[in-house]
Amino acid sequence: VRSTPPADEDRTAPYDPVPQSSSASLGEPDERLARQLRFLIEIDAAKTVLRRSYLMDGTRRENDGEHMWHVAVAAMVLSEHADETVDPTKVLRMLLVHDIVEVDAGDTFVYDEVAARDKPDRERRAADRLFNLLPSDQSLELRALWEEFEARRTAEARLAAAIDRLLPLLANVMAGGRTWQEHGVVDEQVRRVNRRVGEASASLQQVVDALIDRAVHTGMLDRASPAEP
Amino acid sequence: VRSTPPADEDRTAPYDPVPQSSSASLGEPDERLARQLRFLIEIDAAKTVLRRSYLMDGTRRENDGEHMWHVAVAAMVLSEHADETVDPTKVLRMLLVHDIVEVDAGDTFVYDEVAARDKPDRERRAADRLFNLLPSDQSLELRALWEEFEARRTAEARLAAAIDRLLPLLANVMAGGRTWQEHGVVDEQVRRVNRRVGEASASLQQVVDALIDRAVHTGMLDRASPAEP
Repeated sequence: VRSTPPADEDRTAPYDPVPQSSSASLGEPDERLARQLRFLIEIDAAKTVLRRSYLMDGTRRENDGEHMWHVAVAAMVLSEHADETVDPTKVLRMLLVHDIVEVDAGDTFVYDEVAARDKPDRERRAADRLFNLLPSDQSLELRALWEEFEARRTAEARLAAAIDRLLPLLANVMAGGRTWQEHGVVDEQVRRVNRRVGEASASLQQVVDALIDRAVHTGMLDRASPAEP
Repeated sequence: VRSTPPADEDRTAPYDPVPQSSSASLGEPDERLARQLRFLIEIDAAKTVLRRSYLMDGTRRENDGEHMWHVAVAAMVLSEHADETVDPTKVLRMLLVHDIVEVDAGDTFVYDEVAARDKPDRERRAADRLFNLLPSDQSLELRALWEEFEARRTAEARLAAAIDRLLPLLANVMAGGRTWQEHGVVDEQVRRVNRRVGEASASLQQVVDALIDRAVHTGMLDRASPAEP
């Protein structure tokens, strides 16, 4: 008999990686550790949630798992550019969990105004299910990080959001603007979405503005107004 | 004229994401920030370095970028199981950079004894090139994290290594043992490679042992001795 991963329709059923029926006795079965492992198994699916952006080499779309890694490393090297004092570790931890809810809620394209409407609801339900797989203290802790990121009311959340905007923009420019062209996104929209970078860092906002100017200048990003709905 | 990412044969040429010829003036060109961005662009390629393990749903092989994210989140929830006192932030930072050298050096399968021979040399050259893209203080800082991880001499490095073993093992079991079957890996090898988990945490070692027992018990992992060379 070969063990298989849970089927899609059975996503909410807990899969116990360390069953008590195992031939090895675990002594005291550690329910806390089992919950932690179940959470780690469940969020593996973030690697299958595709974003609209491409890898910088343009070969394929990026997934949420690798995106969260890239922005976390970016936080390690860019936190010094924050205009306010930030706790860099908090920025790091926030970025490592900021898109986990998309395992259930899916990625919402930043320029999709229709999908944006029910995004808060979808993501809240996802947070309820996913973070609650963890022991309650950790569930509260990770959920608080995610809520703080979403609310953008602290210096850490603003910097995390700025980095979360900067990297996809950089990737879009590196990949020749393909995401914008595929979705008919024009410069005015890109400027609006990326304006909040300056709330965290004037120097990162300068980079963002220069990247957008360059994308327009080289023809990657259209100047035209968006089509009327 | 459309900007394109640097070709493969031109990987060492610095690509300046914020050229001074841009229509936007950056005022003082910030060489430090330009170096940081260049590093972040270069390590994007970690998302294209494939490991031998599959995603937990078995659909495809995992890449280094998403792997580093997953182990970093694992560090956030599992650090409490360390038998020694650890600085959890250091474990996190170590795991976020531990496979960056593979952008140049490639992934070395943990059961490949031939490839293991020149692995240190390949990875050291990769570290020289990649970390040196950063401003020198950050280059030293990230390289020190990687060296510490590789040396396994601190409690943080041992815990990071244990988590870096546990997650692929869990993924292999979830995906039905495909990696082991594809490469003719048997239980004795898996036990040897995963024995070091106990140097960091007795409870994580128990999980590892139970997972291996279960893999053998369910026929995912062969008991036979490896073929003679």
